[in-house]
Amino acid sequence: MLKIDYTNVMAEAIGEKDGILRQEILSLRDFVSSAHKKIQKERNRKFYFCQLPYQDINPVKEYANHIRENFDYFVLIGIGGSSLGAKMLFEALTQKDYNLKEHPKFFLLENVDPENFDYVIQQIDIKRTCFNVITKSGSTVETIANFSIILSMLKKELGESFKKNLVFTTDPKKGFLRKFGEENGIKTFDIPPQVSGRFSVLSPVGMLPASVVGIDVDGILEGARQMDKITSVEEHIESNPAYLLATIHYLANIRRNKSISAMMPYVERLSSFVDWYRQLWAESLGKDGLGQTPVKSLGTIDQHSQIQLYLEGVRDKIITFIATENFPVDFSIPDNLPKEISYLSGQTLSQILKKELLGTKAAFVKNRIPNLTITMDRVSPYNMGMLIYLYQLATAFSGYLYRVNPFDQPAVEEGKSFMYALMGREGYQDKLEEFNEFNKEEYRLVIS
Amino acid sequence: MLKIDYTNVMAEAIGEKDGILRQEILSLRDFVSSAHKKIQKERNRKFYFCQLPYQDINPVKEYANHIRENFDYFVLIGIGGSSLGAKMLFEALTQKDYNLKEHPKFFLLENVDPENFDYVIQQIDIKRTCFNVITKSGSTVETIANFSIILSMLKKELGESFKKNLVFTTDPKKGFLRKFGEENGIKTFDIPPQVSGRFSVLSPVGMLPASVVGIDVDGILEGARQMDKITSVEEHIESNPAYLLATIHYLANIRRNKSISAMMPYVERLSSFVDWYRQLWAESLGKDGLGQTPVKSLGTIDQHSQIQLYLEGVRDKIITFIATENFPVDFSIPDNLPKEISYLSGQTLSQILKKELLGTKAAFVKNRIPNLTITMDRVSPYNMGMLIYLYQLATAFSGYLYRVNPFDQPAVEEGKSFMYALMGREGYQDKLEEFNEFNKEEYRLVIS
Repeated sequence: MLKIDYTNVMAEAIGEKDGILRQEILSLRDFVSSAHKKIQKERNRKFYFCQLPYQDINPVKEYANHIRENFDYFVLIGIGGSSLGAKMLFEALTQKDYNLKEHPKFFLLENVDPENFDYVIQQIDIKRTCFNVITKSGSTVETIANFSIILSMLKKELGESFKKNLVFTTDPKKGFLRKFGEENGIKTFDIPPQVSGRFSVLSPVGMLPASVVGIDVDGILEGARQMDKITSVEEHIESNPAYLLATIHYLANIRRNKSISAMMPYVERLSSFVDWYRQLWAESLGKDGLGQTPVKSLGTIDQHSQIQLYLEGVRDKIITFIATENFPVDFSIPDNLPKEISYLSGQTLSQILKKELLGTKAAFVKNRIPNLTITMDRVSPYNMGMLIYLYQLATAFSGYLYRVNPFDQPAVEEGKSFMYALMGREGYQDKLEEFNEFNKEEYRLVIS
Repeated sequence: MLKIDYTNVMAEAIGEKDGILRQEILSLRDFVSSAHKKIQKERNRKFYFCQLPYQDINPVKEYANHIRENFDYFVLIGIGGSSLGAKMLFEALTQKDYNLKEHPKFFLLENVDPENFDYVIQQIDIKRTCFNVITKSGSTVETIANFSIILSMLKKELGESFKKNLVFTTDPKKGFLRKFGEENGIKTFDIPPQVSGRFSVLSPVGMLPASVVGIDVDGILEGARQMDKITSVEEHIESNPAYLLATIHYLANIRRNKSISAMMPYVERLSSFVDWYRQLWAESLGKDGLGQTPVKSLGTIDQHSQIQLYLEGVRDKIITFIATENFPVDFSIPDNLPKEISYLSGQTLSQILKKELLGTKAAFVKNRIPNLTITMDRVSPYNMGMLIYLYQLATAFSGYLYRVNPFDQPAVEEGKSFMYALMGREGYQDKLEEFNEFNKEEYRLVIS
């Protein structure tokens, strides 16, 4: 169960200067209805991520079982859309002590920070490790760099049987990784060509790692299908949670100058969900001088860090709180407390957490800061599937509102091509000259 | 060594629309010079954090040794300004596998998320654990809640000798924790009354935990003293790194509408430094409708998540890159790579990381996005001490530029008082009525 409470983004609660009028939402009804039809037509093309919940997941589950039975360690080599989804599911749906108690132990090689690489290889026995290399293009620099070092280590340890320790997830036809996989007979899963990285968590990109660490991927897909069912049928803006979420943020941004979308879960398990959301929202909509900047917060920790700014700083924010009704464990404050703190007696930690959220929300309303709250009954595979699908569709639909293509990321290429030039990659010689033009050091201060 | 390269915030590099003119910086010379005199006068009062590098650190180091010799686990109970500093130092200056190889093992109880509490107590043997309870006010709800459960567990296990497993860090006179410490003869360190949480990392708040995990706190304080020496002597804005940093951000914000300050280290060790900075910047300056929203990023990971938005989204950002020249380990890409990826051959991971940063910066300049780079020769205690002091002084000085008090956080109280009302705390009955007024649920959508 997901509940979206958007009372506090509305003008009735926080005034017309910061809050949205119901009328403004309803005025977009025809627009939404027409976009809805386009989306349904595009399900097998641009909006192919809508089809992912209906894939046959058995091959992924079977291979995950094979990995669970044959390896003690599982390392995901990937970055951005190839890692954030699996990281979110791992944090949301396994126990925090997973790596101390379960197997295969799970590690990530995302960055090219050498100390992080060193840490991961110290933790594993490379012979007993399955490496899942994930890259849509098949050529992501960080991923290929990490992979090529791992590959030479594997070959050294295992000779020709290195292949058994590798599984790839990449484009069905294109790119270096696909070719290398075919040439060497390495098990490879497909990323549907129409699905860009940040919309791929429900493909093998996220489902294989999730299944390897024992997460109920059927439950995730069931939740996603349920959200698809509702959002496919309901084209009325106030009944369709994805269109509603998108419209609220769009109106808050364009009509009320809320250029920042902060997301603040009051449950630590959802911390990495925000990182996943950050990519989805920023990379899909941050183009043509438009888009909202997503900002990560965590309750209650950021009450002691960001709340002062949110309440009394620049009035440029809309906040999404995320909460869960139930926690699998809880602890009670004892009742023999000294008088000064006796108000805490008998409360549980989760009750305190909830009251902190309620108090914070009331302070937001009092200061007329727009905020909405998504509540789930518990952090389950089913609910995570609903939440993921909800945000993917809301983001993709927002492309229509902002009139941008939510599925590309043209600006990312610029920095990459300069980097290729610096590395002397063939075909990028011209870029070196342009780089030198932009790489000046004229104003500096050195303190030793 | 710290190097601040601010070429790319200047108009010469990115144009006058987004970049700052040297003249604009210089026009604040007299203002800065007069603020400088005020700050130097206030060193023993409001700006007391400037004195922390000169404290006698021996009592802290001696007690840290006592803890190292007598306990297997060390748990910091604190939140916000009481935890972010220690967390930053732990991540920046110990090995990533510290808890697997060193002792005492280090854990944090910050939030009141019950699953996190459960995780921490599962990891420790409570009888062999020293708990450092840190709260300036002595009554922070999360901290006291976690502490009171731990206290009853300790009493159950150890009877009256529970006291030996506790050490407090709090106000020298005020608050519940001070009183409880005195009544029970518990070792207690002082937080100087003039120093608010976010400026307290160089006090026992950060220095005791750092020393317990074996960090060279003398080195940190030496770096901070060095930065103090330079910033105390140099009142010229272009020679004083703290005033320069503050002025650049202020001008970018007020004159060029850069309302977001993103910080993006290209070294994973500094990830938590950004969390510490976020509190410092947001809570100190986010008032009176002013202030910049600090945003956390991490290179290269966020090149695959936020860069599209930074380059082509709303032009409201100034970015600070942080880099290190040297890593203690490194790995080379093998040189027998297939042709498609042979440009990587022979590069090390750290070289790739540096070229990614250079490429990204050039793309920022090309898109006229203001950015500055702070480079250290290595992530050392001395350099961290310089960096911490630099940012504290820059933030406090920014209070003069924005004409706000950087040392208070008035808005934080609002949510707290509603929460107290919900908990039935004495003296907060009136707030309950006000709360009900702000806690409506009129617009919602439920999906099951």
